[in-house]
Amino acid sequence: METLAAEIIAIGNEVLNGEIVNGNAAYLSSRLDDAGWRVVRHTVVADVEADILQAFREAESRARVAIVTGGLGPTRDDITSACAARFFGVERRLDEAVLAGIQAFFERVHYPMTENNRNQAMFPEGAVVLPNPLGTAPGFRMARADRHFFFMPGVPREMKRMMEHEVLPFLEGLLPPGSHQSTVLLRVFGIGESRLDERLSDAAAGVPGVTLGFRADFPENLIRIVAEGTSADEAQERRDGVRAEIEARLGDLVIGESDRRIEAVVGELLRERKLRLATAESCSGGLLAHRLTNVAGSSDYFERGMVVYSNEAKAAELGVAEALLEAHGAVSEPVAIAMAEGVRRAAGVDLGIAITGIAGPAGGTEEKPVGLVFIALATAEGTRAHRLQFFGDREHIKNWSAAIALNMIRMHVLGLEWAGRFR
Amino acid sequence: METLAAEIIAIGNEVLNGEIVNGNAAYLSSRLDDAGWRVVRHTVVADVEADILQAFREAESRARVAIVTGGLGPTRDDITSACAARFFGVERRLDEAVLAGIQAFFERVHYPMTENNRNQAMFPEGAVVLPNPLGTAPGFRMARADRHFFFMPGVPREMKRMMEHEVLPFLEGLLPPGSHQSTVLLRVFGIGESRLDERLSDAAAGVPGVTLGFRADFPENLIRIVAEGTSADEAQERRDGVRAEIEARLGDLVIGESDRRIEAVVGELLRERKLRLATAESCSGGLLAHRLTNVAGSSDYFERGMVVYSNEAKAAELGVAEALLEAHGAVSEPVAIAMAEGVRRAAGVDLGIAITGIAGPAGGTEEKPVGLVFIALATAEGTRAHRLQFFGDREHIKNWSAAIALNMIRMHVLGLEWAGRFR
Repeated sequence: METLAAEIIAIGNEVLNGEIVNGNAAYLSSRLDDAGWRVVRHTVVADVEADILQAFREAESRARVAIVTGGLGPTRDDITSACAARFFGVERRLDEAVLAGIQAFFERVHYPMTENNRNQAMFPEGAVVLPNPLGTAPGFRMARADRHFFFMPGVPREMKRMMEHEVLPFLEGLLPPGSHQSTVLLRVFGIGESRLDERLSDAAAGVPGVTLGFRADFPENLIRIVAEGTSADEAQERRDGVRAEIEARLGDLVIGESDRRIEAVVGELLRERKLRLATAESCSGGLLAHRLTNVAGSSDYFERGMVVYSNEAKAAELGVAEALLEAHGAVSEPVAIAMAEGVRRAAGVDLGIAITGIAGPAGGTEEKPVGLVFIALATAEGTRAHRLQFFGDREHIKNWSAAIALNMIRMHVLGLEWAGRFR
Repeated sequence: METLAAEIIAIGNEVLNGEIVNGNAAYLSSRLDDAGWRVVRHTVVADVEADILQAFREAESRARVAIVTGGLGPTRDDITSACAARFFGVERRLDEAVLAGIQAFFERVHYPMTENNRNQAMFPEGAVVLPNPLGTAPGFRMARADRHFFFMPGVPREMKRMMEHEVLPFLEGLLPPGSHQSTVLLRVFGIGESRLDERLSDAAAGVPGVTLGFRADFPENLIRIVAEGTSADEAQERRDGVRAEIEARLGDLVIGESDRRIEAVVGELLRERKLRLATAESCSGGLLAHRLTNVAGSSDYFERGMVVYSNEAKAAELGVAEALLEAHGAVSEPVAIAMAEGVRRAAGVDLGIAITGIAGPAGGTEEKPVGLVFIALATAEGTRAHRLQFFGDREHIKNWSAAIALNMIRMHVLGLEWAGRFR
C-alpha cells in the first residue's frame, strides 16, 4: 500500500517568532503517521495573507491532505478563515447555528461576548464546520478535486480533540479501498528507545506487511505496530500476532495500550483489587498526587497525599522520628521508608508510597548529588525502597520520580518484583 | 525601518514524524527576532534530496538569510552537505584541518572513530566552515548574490553555541546601518485574549514604529510589544512608553515579564516578604503544590501541602469539623475556609490556601455542578473565600483552580483585592 502524503501548516506570529514551540506539529505528525499517512512537510507562516496563501498553494501542489492550525481566534490578526475563502475562491457567510452556539457559550460562562467573536462564526461557503466543544472557535474542512484542507484552532487541547473526533475519522475514508490497515500503539515503561529497537528488531520478521515504529512519550515509550492486509481481518490478525510476540518478549515492561497512561492503569488495578492508596512526597512536590488525581474517579482509591517539604512536616504529618532525620538526613532510605509507613498508617490505607530526594538545582552534595531520590512503598507485607539517581533539571527529576513511583505501585499490585533499574 | 527576512529550515525525519518537537526553530526565531530579523517561515523536510533542494530554492526566493539545521551527522541519511553542494552547483572536498580536528576529538573521548565520520569533514567548495567545539560536525556558510545560507547541526547544544558565536555576529554585518528594534513580552492573568485586544487596541496609537501582539499561554495571556527606531535608545524608549501605557490600563492584571510564570512571581513575593505558605487541596489534587514546587528554591517559603481527597483526611489533617462537612458538604465555602485555616494552623505558617470543588466528570448535582470550586485564603488578618464556576474537562478545572489560587496569593501579598471574577 502506498502511503498518502500530508502536510502540516501552522499559522501564527507567536510560533514564527519563537514565543511558542510548535508542539502541535509533532502531535499531528505522530497521529497522521499512526493513521498511515506520510507527512512530507511542516510549515509555519505569519498572520499575513500573502504568506498564508502561498503556503496553501504549495501544500495543494504536493500533498493530498493539508492540516492547518491557528488563526481562528476572534482578534484582528486571526485571518485563516478569510484566507481559506480567498484560496478556494468563495465568499464568507455567517453560520447562524455556530453564532448561537458561541452566544450560548458566553452566557454559560457569564462572560460578555465581544463583537469580534462574531468573526468566529464566519465560514467560507462550502466549508463543513468541525465542532469545537472545548472553545469558541469551530474548525472547518474544504476540498478541491482530491485535495483536502482541514482548519483547526491552534489551542492544543481544542485542536487535539477536533483531530481525534473529526479529522482522523474523515481521513480514514480517504485511504484507498481494498487496502486495509490495522494499527496498535503499545505503551512501555522502564526500557530506553534504542534498547527497545534492539530487542524488537526481528519481532515482526516472517509476518508480511507489518512495520514497527518507536517513539518516546517521556518518560514512557510507545511501540507502533502497523499491519497491512487485503482484508480488515488479515490486517488485524497480522497485527495481533506481532503484538503477542512483543508482549512475550517485553513481559511486564508493557503497560498497556497507548491511550492509557500509567496512572490510569494503576487506577484500574487499585479499583479492581479494592486497594486504597496514600502518598507522601518531598522532592516531587505533589506531582505524584496530581497525576493520580488526573484520572476520573480516582477518589475511589486515592485517599490523601502529603507534600512534606519541611522536616517539621515530615515529623508532624507522618511521624518520621527526628532522630532518624538527624542521623540519615531527609534524603535517605530510612526516611523514605518511615514516610511511606507513616502515610499508610495516618491514612489507614493499604498502600503508602513516599518520595524524597534532591530536585535541585541547589542542595546537592558530593555524597548526595542533585537527582538522588529514594522511593519507598509500604504494604501489608512490608516496605520496599529503591535508591535512584536521575539526571537533568528540576522538572525532569520530578517527572522521573513520579513515574517510577507509579510503576512501583503497578508492579506491586501485579505481584511483580521491580529490580530497581532500567533495562 | 524595513526588517530583513529570514527563514528557518529543519532537515530530519525525526522532526517530521513527530518524534521530536522542533524546539530549535523557536530558539532560532527568537534570537533572529532579537537581532532585528523578520522570520517569515519555518520549514521541516525529510532527509530526501528532492525535498531539501525544493526547500532551499523556496527560501532563496523569499529571504535574505536561510538558517538550516540537521543532517550533518555521520550516517547515510545525513545528506545536508551533499545537497548544499548540489544546490550551489559545486563539488565537495575534504577539509584536512577539520578531519584532523575530528580525529583529535575521538582520541580525546577514547572512542573509536568510524569511517563515516570522514563525511563530516567534507564541505562544498567555497563554504566557510563554522567551528563546533561541542561536537564532531562543524557547520558552514555559503552565499549566492545577496542570499546567505547557514548550515548547522541539529543537536540543540551544538547548534546554539554556533548560532551565538558564528552566525549572529556575521548577521549583524548584514543589517543596514541605523535600524534598531526593541521587544518586551508582558504576562497578564485574569483577562481573556479578545477583551485584552479590545482594551489595548489604541494603546500604541501615536507612538510610531510600535506593534502589539497577543497570545494565550493558558491560563495566562501574553502581550508582545515590538518597537523600532533609528537608534537602540529610540527603539527602547518607544517600547517603554507603550509598556507604561499598557501597565496603567491593566493595573494588577499584569503579572510581570513573560519568562516568569505566576508561581515564580508568587515565590519571589513570598521570599521578599518572608512569608511562608501551606496548601490544602481537594479537587486540584496536588497541582497547586506541584506548580509552587516547580520553582527552584521554593522550600524557602513552601512548608507543606495536603491533598485531602477523603472527608476523613479533611477532618484528621486539617481539623475540619465533621458537623461542618455534614451540614454544607465537602464542596462549600465553610469547608474551604476551615481547610485554609486548618492547614495554616497545622503548618504554623503565615498563609494557608485551600481548594475544594468538583473536577468531574462525575459527582456533579444541579445545586453543585461539575466545575464548582471554592478557594479560600487564610491570613493573619482573616480568611477570604471565593466561589467560582469553571467549565471544561477535569484537567481544565484543575488548571484553573490552581491558577486562581496562585493569583489570590499574589494579590493578597501585594495588598490588592481580587473581585473574584474575570474582566
